[in-house]
Amino acid sequence: MPHSISKLNYRIIFHLMGLLLLVNGGFIMLSSIVSFVYDDGVGLQMIYSGLTVLAVGTALMLLTRKYSKEMQKREGYLIVTFGWIIMSLAGTLPYVFTGAIPGFTNAFFETMSGYTTTGASILNDIESLPKGVLFWRSVTHWIGGMGIIVLAIAILPLLGIGGMQLFAAEAPGPGGDKLHPRITDTAKRLWIIYVGYTVAETVLLKIAGMDFFDAINHSLSTLSTGGFSTKNASVAFWNDRPMIQYIIMVFMFLAGTNFVLSYFAFKTKFSKIFRDEEFKLYGILIFALTVVAAAFIYFSADPSASGVDHPMVWGEFESAVRHGLFQVLAIVTTTGFVSADYTLWTPFLTIFFFGLMFLGGSSGSTAGGVKIVRHLIMIKNGIIEFRRTLHPNAILPVRYNNRAVQQPIVFNILAFFILYMLSFIVGVLVFSWLGLDFDTALGGAASTLGNVGPALGDLGPTSNYAGLPTAAKWWSTFLMLIGRLELFTVLILLTPFFWRNR
Amino acid sequence: MPHSISKLNYRIIFHLMGLLLLVNGGFIMLSSIVSFVYDDGVGLQMIYSGLTVLAVGTALMLLTRKYSKEMQKREGYLIVTFGWIIMSLAGTLPYVFTGAIPGFTNAFFETMSGYTTTGASILNDIESLPKGVLFWRSVTHWIGGMGIIVLAIAILPLLGIGGMQLFAAEAPGPGGDKLHPRITDTAKRLWIIYVGYTVAETVLLKIAGMDFFDAINHSLSTLSTGGFSTKNASVAFWNDRPMIQYIIMVFMFLAGTNFVLSYFAFKTKFSKIFRDEEFKLYGILIFALTVVAAAFIYFSADPSASGVDHPMVWGEFESAVRHGLFQVLAIVTTTGFVSADYTLWTPFLTIFFFGLMFLGGSSGSTAGGVKIVRHLIMIKNGIIEFRRTLHPNAILPVRYNNRAVQQPIVFNILAFFILYMLSFIVGVLVFSWLGLDFDTALGGAASTLGNVGPALGDLGPTSNYAGLPTAAKWWSTFLMLIGRLELFTVLILLTPFFWRNR
Repeated sequence: MPHSISKLNYRIIFHLMGLLLLVNGGFIMLSSIVSFVYDDGVGLQMIYSGLTVLAVGTALMLLTRKYSKEMQKREGYLIVTFGWIIMSLAGTLPYVFTGAIPGFTNAFFETMSGYTTTGASILNDIESLPKGVLFWRSVTHWIGGMGIIVLAIAILPLLGIGGMQLFAAEAPGPGGDKLHPRITDTAKRLWIIYVGYTVAETVLLKIAGMDFFDAINHSLSTLSTGGFSTKNASVAFWNDRPMIQYIIMVFMFLAGTNFVLSYFAFKTKFSKIFRDEEFKLYGILIFALTVVAAAFIYFSADPSASGVDHPMVWGEFESAVRHGLFQVLAIVTTTGFVSADYTLWTPFLTIFFFGLMFLGGSSGSTAGGVKIVRHLIMIKNGIIEFRRTLHPNAILPVRYNNRAVQQPIVFNILAFFILYMLSFIVGVLVFSWLGLDFDTALGGAASTLGNVGPALGDLGPTSNYAGLPTAAKWWSTFLMLIGRLELFTVLILLTPFFWRNR
Repeated sequence: MPHSISKLNYRIIFHLMGLLLLVNGGFIMLSSIVSFVYDDGVGLQMIYSGLTVLAVGTALMLLTRKYSKEMQKREGYLIVTFGWIIMSLAGTLPYVFTGAIPGFTNAFFETMSGYTTTGASILNDIESLPKGVLFWRSVTHWIGGMGIIVLAIAILPLLGIGGMQLFAAEAPGPGGDKLHPRITDTAKRLWIIYVGYTVAETVLLKIAGMDFFDAINHSLSTLSTGGFSTKNASVAFWNDRPMIQYIIMVFMFLAGTNFVLSYFAFKTKFSKIFRDEEFKLYGILIFALTVVAAAFIYFSADPSASGVDHPMVWGEFESAVRHGLFQVLAIVTTTGFVSADYTLWTPFLTIFFFGLMFLGGSSGSTAGGVKIVRHLIMIKNGIIEFRRTLHPNAILPVRYNNRAVQQPIVFNILAFFILYMLSFIVGVLVFSWLGLDFDTALGGAASTLGNVGPALGDLGPTSNYAGLPTAAKWWSTFLMLIGRLELFTVLILLTPFFWRNR
């Protein structure tokens, strides 16, 4: 029986949870150094929280040190989901111990938003936080981004999630039910690129005139497509320094691109990049959407709202293009940085950016959302479905990157999208049941599920999630989590047959 | 070559268009009798418009009388789509000739809304219209409903549209590429039920105290799940006559049920009805949604807005349940009658009814929207997809009414839903580009695409479509048409390969 499921191997699950806590604790200790360097007065509290997490992690690893390496898919789902949850729980300690964020709900929201690279915040005054805590906040994004790269390249394809098998030629093929808990070589190479990009962005931002602390924090936020900023005004703070915004745009674009393609670029295999259908569509979309956004900003937006003045002067034309491109990249890559309040431009652009929250970046990137490759497969399948309607007996497979995509994968992608829309609808209903108004509920559900950050209405780009009722904050964390883990990974744990021991 | 496509048989297409115009003209002549009976002063203009349509129809049939009966699918799509368009064009004449509706755009909107059984109106003062014209307006719904029954039972399954093959055991099976232009016996039997229900509702409404003219018009509107009323306040006009509203509810429920099941009922094959999975889900949904709606109306709605006063008195509890059930039925069956302004109740109920616009009635009914059976298949497939994720090698078909549904049909349904959502998104974007605000654009697209009628914002239940820009009115007619004809039927005509003669 290839599908007989044995008892769950809880030991290895807890062992790996312990390992994750050590990683978590290590990064908290790193943040405490930032506290001491900038003498923000919370260095000791940071160390205490780091030590607590390290102690719990060590205890967990020791208690479960005799574990069997035998793992199947079911352990995989549990490790991924509980891994994200346990990291988010442990990650609250720096906020709680330093008193930087009042209330556990708020602290958990901020940490989950960090690890899921959403970037939604409950902070009213970001700039008043101690530097060590701000750094830790950005680091949660960055660790989350690293986690997503491993997931996308090494884990989710094995778990058979929503067409993740399509990712890239480099990704390991499905090798049956057995899971290898080691991180693949590919993932390691991609991590190096991830680190390299982060360093490069930091250096460039510093050169362009950003403060070093802001530069490193924004780099951590950009590469993870997170969106946490160290400024209350987000990247709009640098509206008079276009170069800073252009640098962030370049790295948002790269962070929303499959990291495997960046790897090809460093290997100078450029033909592989330009033949990649997802990358082509990603590029075309960013270009076309920017043209639309910039045209609307330039010709119809309220100049005072967007910071763009009429009429046709080079500077203002540049401003329209820059803000259009910036917000298109920020939403499509699900980073969620803000250069201007897009809900104040025109009613069309509000709808436009709301719609973009359902797009998502490339597969194999740190971006969230539905993802370009899934849309591409759905469009291709949709066109073919018209042909199938006309010629029911013809066998017409969907082709992607010159290969026929297996039917089950197409099926899985269609089911993923429907589940995504269903999750969105349930998300909206629960939000509005909890008292959110129409725009806020729609925007909030789309933004948290897509891991974007800013939304509409009371959760617009210049606002934050602080004013939500407590229950709505918890609901947001759930939507962020399922969105980040490609729905199936989390939701499968809610099915009865997952737990049936057969 | 089974798929070689010969030249399109335009003669039979035009011949059938002529036949449809004769039907159209005949019903206009019938409406002119109403004009004379009620002496509304436009009898002659009604006769002129009827004669014009009859003349054009006769000419078209004579010119194409030598036609070959050879037809394939392509002719089928053209006949259905152009049939609806030509009916809507000819149907404007009574409005234009009598001057009851100013402007061709408005007249075409009202006729398309009639034939697609949407029920959206551009009329600010319905009650001021001549009775003959009002009757004609209701008749367009009723003819549209008849058309939908033939489509659903006899034509769309052959054209392979969105899982319409699943409909009912009685529906003829796909018989290859050849189309038989005769109306099947099944469709004829269902028409008799349709006529019978219409007569029954008219009699019951008259007995319950409604004016005879209003009774027949509302019956024509109910059975077709249209929604045109002869009163400016729609069915809210009878808020002090609950019996009238309950009668309308019963027939809305029946109109949203597969007519094949009504046929079984008359044959006393009740077990076939209660074993039908779509009917069971339809019944459960109506019940559960009504409980939710009524609870929100009773406990949290603004009493002045819903006409429901607190606290717990029998009469008011009844009122909450009645309005809840009425609006749930009106939206789910896509009839669109209004008993109260649901956008004034609570923010949750606004979102709730907006979401219901994506549900749709049963297959084989006159209701529009996505349809219950498609949701059922999607839910079943979604659940199975989780199992497939866990056991990739197991073959797990979707079962419906105790039969395994063929993969291509499930595929077709998933593709249909995605195309529906895509059409919705494009619909919203175009609306907001034309200047509609957020709520209005979202509601308008959902309502016209689902053939509901009332929407949100400026197009709310107590408002109408008169204030839309001209371009938005045309865009609405397009959305109504593609929604009514199950998307593929119309959109396939926009693909290049449809017209390629190979």
